[in-house]
Amino acid sequence: RVDGSRLWSTLMETARFGATPAGGINRLTLSDEDRAVRDWFRDACEAAGLEVGTDALGTQFALRRGRDMSRKPIACGSHLDTQPTGGKFDGILGVLAGLEVMRSLNDAGIETEAPLLLVNWTNEEGSRFAPAMMASAAYAGEFTTDEILAKRDAKGVSVGEALESIGYQGGEPVGAREIGAFVELHIEQGPILEAEQKTIGVVEGGQGIAWFDGTVAGFESHAGTTPMPRRRDAMLGLAEFALAVERIALAHAPTAVATLGEAEIVSPSRNVVPGQIRFTLDVRDPASAVLDAMEAALNEAAAEIGTRRNLAIALTRIWRKEPVPFHPHLIAAVDGAAEGLGLSRRRMVSGAGHDACNLAGRMPAAMIFVPCKDGVSHNESESAEPADCAAGADVLLHTLVTLANA
Amino acid sequence: RVDGSRLWSTLMETARFGATPAGGINRLTLSDEDRAVRDWFRDACEAAGLEVGTDALGTQFALRRGRDMSRKPIACGSHLDTQPTGGKFDGILGVLAGLEVMRSLNDAGIETEAPLLLVNWTNEEGSRFAPAMMASAAYAGEFTTDEILAKRDAKGVSVGEALESIGYQGGEPVGAREIGAFVELHIEQGPILEAEQKTIGVVEGGQGIAWFDGTVAGFESHAGTTPMPRRRDAMLGLAEFALAVERIALAHAPTAVATLGEAEIVSPSRNVVPGQIRFTLDVRDPASAVLDAMEAALNEAAAEIGTRRNLAIALTRIWRKEPVPFHPHLIAAVDGAAEGLGLSRRRMVSGAGHDACNLAGRMPAAMIFVPCKDGVSHNESESAEPADCAAGADVLLHTLVTLANA
Ligand SMILES: NC(=O)NCCC(=O)O
Ligand SMILES: NC(=O)NCCC(=O)O
Repeated sequence: RVDGSRLWSTLMETARFGATPAGGINRLTLSDEDRAVRDWFRDACEAAGLEVGTDALGTQFALRRGRDMSRKPIACGSHLDTQPTGGKFDGILGVLAGLEVMRSLNDAGIETEAPLLLVNWTNEEGSRFAPAMMASAAYAGEFTTDEILAKRDAKGVSVGEALESIGYQGGEPVGAREIGAFVELHIEQGPILEAEQKTIGVVEGGQGIAWFDGTVAGFESHAGTTPMPRRRDAMLGLAEFALAVERIALAHAPTAVATLGEAEIVSPSRNVVPGQIRFTLDVRDPASAVLDAMEAALNEAAAEIGTRRNLAIALTRIWRKEPVPFHPHLIAAVDGAAEGLGLSRRRMVSGAGHDACNLAGRMPAAMIFVPCKDGVSHNESESAEPADCAAGADVLLHTLVTLANA
Repeated sequence: RVDGSRLWSTLMETARFGATPAGGINRLTLSDEDRAVRDWFRDACEAAGLEVGTDALGTQFALRRGRDMSRKPIACGSHLDTQPTGGKFDGILGVLAGLEVMRSLNDAGIETEAPLLLVNWTNEEGSRFAPAMMASAAYAGEFTTDEILAKRDAKGVSVGEALESIGYQGGEPVGAREIGAFVELHIEQGPILEAEQKTIGVVEGGQGIAWFDGTVAGFESHAGTTPMPRRRDAMLGLAEFALAVERIALAHAPTAVATLGEAEIVSPSRNVVPGQIRFTLDVRDPASAVLDAMEAALNEAAAEIGTRRNLAIALTRIWRKEPVPFHPHLIAAVDGAAEGLGLSRRRMVSGAGHDACNLAGRMPAAMIFVPCKDGVSHNESESAEPADCAAGADVLLHTLVTLANA
């Protein structure tokens, strides 16, 4: 078993990098705060005797040697970046539990057959740069390294520039390092485990995700002199569209979700009818066909509202991630580890995207979920119980050792 | 008569200060662009033999001496600041037509009994600092100078700091300079004169205006894992409220207008359900009682949406300007000048707020409107005909001379 209290203090120790007054973490990928936690992580891994490398997208790999170095390493990990209103567990638990597994194996003097690998993937969150989970996608071959390096944030800074500015563009080619299997521990970020009082979620796969950039184009005009019927108000178009987004998700209840997460009026002014708006859209469902249906309905709603209000509402799909099934063998390994530890559990599908979903395209992958308070995530109040974090880390330890010694 | 082509070239000449690629002007009050046009204006006034002074809020006064310097000057003017998506005429026409009047009187060697005064009022637009028309309001005693100096823009810069940074905090106490009457020439900013093919609007008053700051408070949560019914989505609350604003304005058609002009998600992210939004609201009607009724309906709508969606929607009124009737004697003077010049005209109420509306609280005031293309204003494509600008300046010239010699 891992040392649960050491894991908890490590979680609390790293929460200072990007800490917010409300008790959360704002540690956008490739920011100064991200550099600080990366430096800390490298030092901690080296102190635990791991060999640390960095690839050309900044992903950090920490290797624990095995008896048979000809075998591909069995890997775990997640991400240390957060949302602007992020919490102390999303991603972080998976990385620091991996570190705790390494420390516990060291303490117990246990050597595994295959080597073990702990990974901190760059930009899992997708808040600063879209899409989410971009480094693991490039690792799995869904994008080229150059495509990812060229992505830009809202201020126009590219991934390449940001990597350079924090000194984390490593020498390892992306995807060059072979991995035998990948197991990711994560908080559920949803309400099910807590509601059913289960400790472990045995994750069978991730749902599909589509991301869109949108614009509403109307016409700026004077707020005091433009009669209501003559207006081409982009804000009213956005308002109707946001409500259509909700309606379309509810039409595929209970599985589908859809979110208008960013919206910005270009050149806003109190006494100007808004003329131009940029927004983003996040649409999800476990079924590919439902994603298709929702996209069609969204485009129809945009056209209808646009025509009626004399606006141009445009949607551009910038990313689509198909639903991902995890590997039956690994799912069974997670389930077996939880059973062996006597932990209550249930099978589930992940609502969030995870690096494991990308890696599943290249190697056997699976995930372990633990409950989080009220199912809340991407919020500064995100919270999890020390005992649940330790239980998840125990399942991770046993799954990794079983796979590495098989 | 004024020199219409000199007026037009002066309009085009100053349009370079803050010129936008789309042919408009972005010259927010107290910005570097505003400083540049103020410097130009001071030099042009001095070249026309006027005595230029600046008050403690940056308002520029240019005096043309009269035969009887014991009489209060007869004043004209408007403002040289613009919206972020401003045009080349809003405010600017009134100031530069005043300059053209001075130049024409000089050319013709005409001396008036009372002195004449040309004014460029600070922050008429109200886009960077709220409320609009703040310097003329302070002049008229509606605010103290210190209240205005303490107002802050969205970046936290105060009026006092901005004045200092462009070097335009003058020595004259605000309101110290006496004015006998104020006449403001402006584009209509609405569609009526153009539609009726009238050249001159004889303005009888300005409608009432109420400005609000608003917030929607929900709860940030994960866009992929939070079921639709569990969300407290601030964006959906804003969307319903924006549509309620439109509905409430239409309930008082055709006079009322209401605009949600600014809206900003705090800490936006593609995969986070929006938790906090700030917005602004602009509500107008010629009748005070209708403003009251709309404010009550808006608060009711905010409460209803908030309760239903488990959000807190709050409105704070930050400014209210009661409907303003102009002075019958001055309205008659404008009408008489237009009649004498053989110009087609109609009486009308201003949909926009103007410095003249504030000054009417302290002295006889009135306005002259000329048509603008498609009634469009607060837009980079704002446009007016040279002949209409010249006609408006002619009416201004005759009105001022009549009043100054009366
Ligand atoms: N786990 C997680 O929150 N990932 C961010 C990507 C997503 O939006 O699902
Ligand atoms: N004339 C003008 O556009 N003034 C700005 C203040 C307002 O919003 O009415």
